[in-house]
Amino acid sequence: MNLKIANMHALFNPESVAVIGASDNPGKLGFHVMKSLSKGGYRGKIVPINPRAREIMGFTCYAGLDAFAGPIDLGIVVVPAKLVPGVFRECAAKGVKGIVLITAGFKEIEDPAGTALHAEIAAIADSAGIPVIGPNTFGMINFNRDLNASFTPEFSLLKNGTVALVSQSGGVSHLLAFLGMRLDVGFSKIVGLGNRLNVDFSEMLEYLDNDPDTRVIALYVEGIDEPNRLIHAAKRYACRKPIIAYKTGSAHVGDQASLSHTGSMAGRHEVYEGGFRQGGILTLSGSEQLLDTAKALAGCPLPEGPGVAILSGQAGPGMAGCDICEAEGLDIVRFSERTQAAINNLLPPLALRTNPVDMGPAWYDSAAITGIVKAVLEDDRVDAILLFMMFASANVNAVEQMSTLLKGWAQKKPLITCILSPPGIWDSQVKNLEDVGALVNYPSPERAAGAVGNLWKYRQLCTRREAPL
Amino acid sequence: MNLKIANMHALFNPESVAVIGASDNPGKLGFHVMKSLSKGGYRGKIVPINPRAREIMGFTCYAGLDAFAGPIDLGIVVVPAKLVPGVFRECAAKGVKGIVLITAGFKEIEDPAGTALHAEIAAIADSAGIPVIGPNTFGMINFNRDLNASFTPEFSLLKNGTVALVSQSGGVSHLLAFLGMRLDVGFSKIVGLGNRLNVDFSEMLEYLDNDPDTRVIALYVEGIDEPNRLIHAAKRYACRKPIIAYKTGSAHVGDQASLSHTGSMAGRHEVYEGGFRQGGILTLSGSEQLLDTAKALAGCPLPEGPGVAILSGQAGPGMAGCDICEAEGLDIVRFSERTQAAINNLLPPLALRTNPVDMGPAWYDSAAITGIVKAVLEDDRVDAILLFMMFASANVNAVEQMSTLLKGWAQKKPLITCILSPPGIWDSQVKNLEDVGALVNYPSPERAAGAVGNLWKYRQLCTRREAPL
Repeated sequence: MNLKIANMHALFNPESVAVIGASDNPGKLGFHVMKSLSKGGYRGKIVPINPRAREIMGFTCYAGLDAFAGPIDLGIVVVPAKLVPGVFRECAAKGVKGIVLITAGFKEIEDPAGTALHAEIAAIADSAGIPVIGPNTFGMINFNRDLNASFTPEFSLLKNGTVALVSQSGGVSHLLAFLGMRLDVGFSKIVGLGNRLNVDFSEMLEYLDNDPDTRVIALYVEGIDEPNRLIHAAKRYACRKPIIAYKTGSAHVGDQASLSHTGSMAGRHEVYEGGFRQGGILTLSGSEQLLDTAKALAGCPLPEGPGVAILSGQAGPGMAGCDICEAEGLDIVRFSERTQAAINNLLPPLALRTNPVDMGPAWYDSAAITGIVKAVLEDDRVDAILLFMMFASANVNAVEQMSTLLKGWAQKKPLITCILSPPGIWDSQVKNLEDVGALVNYPSPERAAGAVGNLWKYRQLCTRREAPL
Repeated sequence: MNLKIANMHALFNPESVAVIGASDNPGKLGFHVMKSLSKGGYRGKIVPINPRAREIMGFTCYAGLDAFAGPIDLGIVVVPAKLVPGVFRECAAKGVKGIVLITAGFKEIEDPAGTALHAEIAAIADSAGIPVIGPNTFGMINFNRDLNASFTPEFSLLKNGTVALVSQSGGVSHLLAFLGMRLDVGFSKIVGLGNRLNVDFSEMLEYLDNDPDTRVIALYVEGIDEPNRLIHAAKRYACRKPIIAYKTGSAHVGDQASLSHTGSMAGRHEVYEGGFRQGGILTLSGSEQLLDTAKALAGCPLPEGPGVAILSGQAGPGMAGCDICEAEGLDIVRFSERTQAAINNLLPPLALRTNPVDMGPAWYDSAAITGIVKAVLEDDRVDAILLFMMFASANVNAVEQMSTLLKGWAQKKPLITCILSPPGIWDSQVKNLEDVGALVNYPSPERAAGAVGNLWKYRQLCTRREAPL
């Protein structure tokens, strides 16, 4: 392992962080970075660097890196572009192990001066073995260390979890983070790659493959100069942890506007999809779908087969789920005789007792509801369970009693739900069930069914890779 | 107009409501209905009917309808099925103008006794000219009268607005209501048709066509015996107000399970779609899409053409929006020379200044951002504007200043946005902008772009209907 890769651990787990360009002026990014670090709960040493200040947000400020006596593991750089080569030389001299370079104005400005600066700082970082996140990035967050090394303090509001998001766009990182708060997705890391001085998707895959905090790797990809580097890295690590990707740029106009090779993007988009498939990366088609799938992969075992049971407290959501399951290639199985006998025992004769089961007629009989769910969980033909329950005041008791069963469920199969209620009612109960790993919840039956579909697609992708072609 | 249709107004706008089967036992639906009415803010007279109680929730209780001296406009019936014929005769004798029949156990139990009861009560209601919502329904809500005639008091938490939802499923009605709360959709009415004794989709279309509180009609359809009645009614009223529909039941297994004509459902599903198109009904493919589209139709004018401008505070979300726009058949237009000159004046040379515009380089210059949005709003080539802004602490000022411009925008064109932030930050500002009709907001750029796509599809559907074929 080369020095740069060896230093990735310190980059994400520093004992001390210097903010080069720290500021107490809210109009400066150096202010927001200091706020992210200090309010985000980081427990290591925070060292603001600014020759024109003595103290920032209660932390002693230093004129330069060399003025601080102790070691610095991570440098977050927010000074103007033209000052960055000097700062990088200081970092190398100080023995800084990793850099987050927020400053923009390098290669992306399509100006020879920017390109030259880019080459200059790359040479300094590479020769010192310093991995650099950026330039032109919001930064990165390591939730397991409460390290918010970004200019957005609100990333620290996210839930700690096992999904690592690696994104080529700062805007989409913010989008996915704020959507993730609403969907209650837990993140291990969020990394804005920016213009990828020397840390690209492939370096991140290598690092995250060994990261015990990360269970699922979610990528947002726009366009990269060397897609094969990503695909080769994915092939190396594929199917050890799920890798999923959302790729934009299929539109011709986006292609033209982004000054890429005009007219060639659509073809390249297909190249990406094919390459991703070979690399064991599941390609998804939207920001919500990327998060939905990451949440399922982080919270569930993979289904052993395509067999799905649909249990619904009301018939309509069950029908919506059936439509999606069939479209996704899942099999709405016929229950075993034993399961069917158990259900027949618990529901009146005229109810829909076969799959999909309408549990409505037993709505006031929580023992019956619990019994049905239990019988279906134990049926070998069932590889995944979809459970839909729409809140009504009149059915609260039945549902709350089912929670006890679900809490005890060891999660040998995916249990994906849409348990929906007015905001503030049941939210905490459902979150509790998610937190103990009993289920994974979605805001609609269609999205719940889509998540099961993607679990199964990912399982098949990896099975095909293992089988000789 | 026959008496039943004439009585629909009183059904939805009663001066007095009797709850036949009212109860103070939380295990009974009659309890929840009383709670819905009284806590929902209904300002008319509430009359509980129950021979075994003298007072329920502070309202004087009567042994029967005839024991109450005044008139009763609406009867909500929650007594067991076998008592319903007698109750209906009492209602007819009392001159009740409309009934919500929550009780289940009629035709849907597939039992000759249920079918006979269904026929008996239909005859009573029809000869008395009483329109009946149900049986086997949660009820209905008229938000403009604060009338929650359902067993779910939480429907009253929804925002008052102009979308009427008519649904064949109670479960899906609850689903759409709770999703609607999250998406901030305002409803005029929510009606659970249940087993449609004598009020079906066609009667509701006729009534809602004349309802000044309703601007958009959203249907949830599972399977109906006479789809042609719905389609004929839609043809009569189509394109006066938008009618949109979500139809489930494409899955064969759902078909089999629901005991419909086995194997014929897939074909029938296509029949529905074709019929809906002829009837000027836009068919949508999911519960979130139904709400997204209803919200856009309620909050925006229709675009005059397919020309879209995409303005994004960060490049990535703009690319995601482009992909969807192109897939939806929208045209990401080339700006007029005047617009382009204005943008060139406001953004640095190396920014993406053509459509899609990346406003990122002007992120700290709120005058520039505002100027770009204004120039694009005024460009004749632009029929709809997509505006994406992902919150970061560092950009709050620029965005807040843009609010002033948007508040003054007269909404001559659809302005569809994805302005996203951590929950609790900006929410109220965005809601204010929605409430003054300045914009319609979505949780992702893809859904925002999809909503513009559906506005344009609906516009085309109606243009084709107007043109001679």
